[in-house]
Amino acid sequence: MAIKKQAVNPEDDLGFGNQAVRQRIINRNGSINVKRLGIPFFSTTNTYHRLITMRWPAFWLTVLVAYIVVNVFFASIYLSIGIGNLHGTNDNNVSNPFLNAFFFSAQTLSTVGYGHISPAGVIANWVAAFESMIGLLAFAMATGLLYGRFSRPSAKFVFSDNMLIAPYALTGGRGLMFRLANMRLNVLLDLAIEMTFSFNEVVDGKTIRRFYTLPLERSKVSILTLSWTVVHPLTEDSPLYNITPEDMKNSMATFNILVQAFDDTFSQTVHSRTSYQYDEIVWGAKFTPAFFHDEAGLVHLHLGKISDFEQADLPEIS
Amino acid sequence: MAIKKQAVNPEDDLGFGNQAVRQRIINRNGSINVKRLGIPFFSTTNTYHRLITMRWPAFWLTVLVAYIVVNVFFASIYLSIGIGNLHGTNDNNVSNPFLNAFFFSAQTLSTVGYGHISPAGVIANWVAAFESMIGLLAFAMATGLLYGRFSRPSAKFVFSDNMLIAPYALTGGRGLMFRLANMRLNVLLDLAIEMTFSFNEVVDGKTIRRFYTLPLERSKVSILTLSWTVVHPLTEDSPLYNITPEDMKNSMATFNILVQAFDDTFSQTVHSRTSYQYDEIVWGAKFTPAFFHDEAGLVHLHLGKISDFEQADLPEIS
Amino acid sequence: MAIKKQAVNPEDDLGFGNQAVRQRIINRNGSINVKRLGIPFFSTTNTYHRLITMRWPAFWLTVLVAYIVVNVFFASIYLSIGIGNLHGTNDNNVSNPFLNAFFFSAQTLSTVGYGHISPAGVIANWVAAFESMIGLLAFAMATGLLYGRFSRPSAKFVFSDNMLIAPYALTGGRGLMFRLANMRLNVLLDLAIEMTFSFNEVVDGKTIRRFYTLPLERSKVSILTLSWTVVHPLTEDSPLYNITPEDMKNSMATFNILVQAFDDTFSQTVHSRTSYQYDEIVWGAKFTPAFFHDEAGLVHLHLGKISDFEQADLPEIS
Amino acid sequence: MAIKKQAVNPEDDLGFGNQAVRQRIINRNGSINVKRLGIPFFSTTNTYHRLITMRWPAFWLTVLVAYIVVNVFFASIYLSIGIGNLHGTNDNNVSNPFLNAFFFSAQTLSTVGYGHISPAGVIANWVAAFESMIGLLAFAMATGLLYGRFSRPSAKFVFSDNMLIAPYALTGGRGLMFRLANMRLNVLLDLAIEMTFSFNEVVDGKTIRRFYTLPLERSKVSILTLSWTVVHPLTEDSPLYNITPEDMKNSMATFNILVQAFDDTFSQTVHSRTSYQYDEIVWGAKFTPAFFHDEAGLVHLHLGKISDFEQADLPEIS
Repeated sequence: MAIKKQAVNPEDDLGFGNQAVRQRIINRNGSINVKRLGIPFFSTTNTYHRLITMRWPAFWLTVLVAYIVVNVFFASIYLSIGIGNLHGTNDNNVSNPFLNAFFFSAQTLSTVGYGHISPAGVIANWVAAFESMIGLLAFAMATGLLYGRFSRPSAKFVFSDNMLIAPYALTGGRGLMFRLANMRLNVLLDLAIEMTFSFNEVVDGKTIRRFYTLPLERSKVSILTLSWTVVHPLTEDSPLYNITPEDMKNSMATFNILVQAFDDTFSQTVHSRTSYQYDEIVWGAKFTPAFFHDEAGLVHLHLGKISDFEQADLPEIS
Repeated sequence: MAIKKQAVNPEDDLGFGNQAVRQRIINRNGSINVKRLGIPFFSTTNTYHRLITMRWPAFWLTVLVAYIVVNVFFASIYLSIGIGNLHGTNDNNVSNPFLNAFFFSAQTLSTVGYGHISPAGVIANWVAAFESMIGLLAFAMATGLLYGRFSRPSAKFVFSDNMLIAPYALTGGRGLMFRLANMRLNVLLDLAIEMTFSFNEVVDGKTIRRFYTLPLERSKVSILTLSWTVVHPLTEDSPLYNITPEDMKNSMATFNILVQAFDDTFSQTVHSRTSYQYDEIVWGAKFTPAFFHDEAGLVHLHLGKISDFEQADLPEIS
Repeated sequence: MAIKKQAVNPEDDLGFGNQAVRQRIINRNGSINVKRLGIPFFSTTNTYHRLITMRWPAFWLTVLVAYIVVNVFFASIYLSIGIGNLHGTNDNNVSNPFLNAFFFSAQTLSTVGYGHISPAGVIANWVAAFESMIGLLAFAMATGLLYGRFSRPSAKFVFSDNMLIAPYALTGGRGLMFRLANMRLNVLLDLAIEMTFSFNEVVDGKTIRRFYTLPLERSKVSILTLSWTVVHPLTEDSPLYNITPEDMKNSMATFNILVQAFDDTFSQTVHSRTSYQYDEIVWGAKFTPAFFHDEAGLVHLHLGKISDFEQADLPEIS
Repeated sequence: MAIKKQAVNPEDDLGFGNQAVRQRIINRNGSINVKRLGIPFFSTTNTYHRLITMRWPAFWLTVLVAYIVVNVFFASIYLSIGIGNLHGTNDNNVSNPFLNAFFFSAQTLSTVGYGHISPAGVIANWVAAFESMIGLLAFAMATGLLYGRFSRPSAKFVFSDNMLIAPYALTGGRGLMFRLANMRLNVLLDLAIEMTFSFNEVVDGKTIRRFYTLPLERSKVSILTLSWTVVHPLTEDSPLYNITPEDMKNSMATFNILVQAFDDTFSQTVHSRTSYQYDEIVWGAKFTPAFFHDEAGLVHLHLGKISDFEQADLPEIS
């Protein structure tokens, strides 16, 4: 095994523990590959979390279903009081009493209140007064949820599909490289990247997982205007100096990437994560430019070309 | 008394003052055990603070009571103007004039406005116009409060029930340990922990309270994916090196824990606090694993097992 | 003049410029004593700023006036179309056509829409459709403003009325001290304080203003549970070592205080400012305790006693 | 070429890449001069971004158009169901069935619901119930958008129109200077400035772009109360020590400015950017004061005079 043991610092664990793994901890899309048992399902915060992070179609469906369920609930109440306590249903051209109650409930919950159906009698009036208050509060919650969904800080980076082992001009040797760019319209400032190398190692006959933070050519930029090629130089100091593709496969080598940036549009710190596994590393390749200048001198960055690379000869390792 | 005096730095006070205490300053649930007198009850910020931090049942009750109180108030006004200025009450099947005024008020405040009861005359129309504006603003406030309640940054950690004096493999000696995990669905980054040891000491016949920040094996992790066992190694440098359970009890030893993390879902810094007292320390025990791998290799973390420990022999102190 | 010139670092200017002043730059309540000319009055941000920071009575009055003005505007339009295009005004017991139009407008703007008055004809219907949209948006704005006002991060500290020149036990000499405590219900973490001493100095016959950041016994605490007495020790290194009350008066000595903290309830960084002038310094006094323990051992902090001090003999300066 | 090559650090690239440019990367108003291709147009985040950052007239127009489009959509549905299913249209003095359906739709969407037109029959009632729910949600979205627009953190600085090569008293030599002040009503704390000098250089016959971060006399101030004159001293260490106007023009010299500050009113970090090109540099000039004291001693800062300068003789370069 070519991974240089002395270079590995036990303090470089990122909170992953030292269990041997058969799967990535951080998935390519940034989600975490750990299942937690015992999280209370109905806690307010977790419900809010789910409503904020679910996909839009699921969210709209949830809202629609909730609207119908609440109206069915109140319609049942009006029906049990007696449909005669809703005046005007005779002129509504709806013969089904439940539907009449349902439509009156909808008009009350949404506070549209046409009034062609109206409550009569003490009990129906109390229920309607209560329902309209519920409507107001439900509306308030929907407002909060929609704002929370829209305004949630999020970075969306496009990462290159592969990591490359490429010639690295600055040292005359090799470099481990990947590329990223901003998929959002906002301006990102103060980007910082942390890359961790993790691998299985056999210690005393037991396989454990080791972690090592890889030093980068540059780990910060002040403003991200184009794409950024992140480079870990494969110098003699690197634990990956003379690693081979077979070493990577045998040790289940994984590279975890944590990206942090400041979103200038909304003044929020945003984070992103991804990971590359041994089978996503290309040996002997270099990235091709993803931008060009037009006639006016304006720079165009083509986000679809972030992953493009071409073959390149690697310098020998002494 | 075995607490090593020279190790205690007067600068390690965390803003608690140096009064001898008979109670914890930080409770187990993180609240602060100091009563402040003279805080203005009706200041806007404190009212907002109370409405945001009160429990949900209390909040809903407050909203309901406020709704009824405001409607009673406006109903009284309509009644004093004369119920004859509300048209349509004859068809409402409600004989009590006050209830008729109340229901009309509710329909106005919630802007449902069926119109089967409607204001007539200049004064009733003015009051109704004003009440509907109040309704709009009350609705606006409810929206803000609900959003504020839902979106309030909060970390919810599960801390182990006990702190352990456990064997600590890295030094071959002992360690003071507790364990924590994330109870929320969100991903926590950049966790940092600060542990303070406080105890009573008799100086010149007067009992004062001393504070000491304990160095940790590791005080930061980049990402919390599993549980985290926080360790203060009981080396010779530690003020707790040769402390006994009796020392702890006599000095009312307390360990205050401050946790800080970055919530990746909502891009907010979150804090949590807890404390352990001398009677929550277990001597000679070690934590048992709280996670396991399923057949597919996926890691499962069982939050209900965070507090589980088993007996363990402690190495002797030289 | 006893202020030690060599101790003053020209780099300690806090962005105040070096003009001699006849007034404080930072007022006691934290506002800035500079008038800026040329700020655009009607910019969106400045309007929002004003609506968020104005006092509550002024805010409610603004909302009420806006509501009336918009309704008067739309009432005029309905009137110019012709009151006959509003059906139902005959039964409203209001003889004044303008008032009828006004009340209809209010019912439309607030979306209460009883319907006892309703638009008739194409133009009145268009205007009503437009007005109800305006009503929705105005409501939306009010919601945002109210939430912005409620949730605005703010620290409210009570600062002692005076700064004291007090005996300082730790050095056996004197200290310049003031005291502060938290007036809010929230918990404050990571407090940091910066104290700047500014004074007039005559250089080449011209009076200029000098600034000096004073080192503090402690400039940070992790958590503020009680009151905090901030101390600048008057050691030989201090530019104030042998200053006299006359020196302070003659040089218009001012002490500017910047406080920063983290509000744990709302996860926001909050700031506060204040200043003390030469005539608010008390020579030869010390603060009396502002807290006590009740029988149960619970600590009570009395915010009204933060300013309380008693006479104390000052040690001589060698 | 007088730009001192040895002073240029390849690590000072700010994420701009090293392409020779014919245009600024950062425009005077702070926007970025790079066109990105391949950003998904209809992503939620980018739509939100556009709605938040578009100008106010465009925003109001978008809202108005959306309101009309949705009402036209629902009016068509009511019409296709049959105008006879909307009761009360006969008394509405509107003969066009589409307009009647449109006005009913508007009354439903805005939840004003007068009720002089009301739905009749099962289908019309279902559509109305659904439309009022859509109205509630649309209202909720408008609320979120308006709040997002109002509360978006933003710094608005006025930068001097020109950078000056001015005499610099502190070194007795020259300085490169510009001036800025705060155009907002809020108080700015902890300002930090970063100035980057970029220029074209011919290396091996190929023109590349170099970047160099210029050290400043002062790069931070604690509080911005007046204007701030930012100075890069043209000492021998500066890469600009003996640069000439011709050098600047030939190398397309550009100065990029990044400003960061903490907005005390809304507790948010705000950023601003600008740039100066070679043709915006004035040689041999100095800024004239932009503030004055009135009789009461109050300082007045005149934002309109931030750019004002007068001729000044430059000291010779040895």
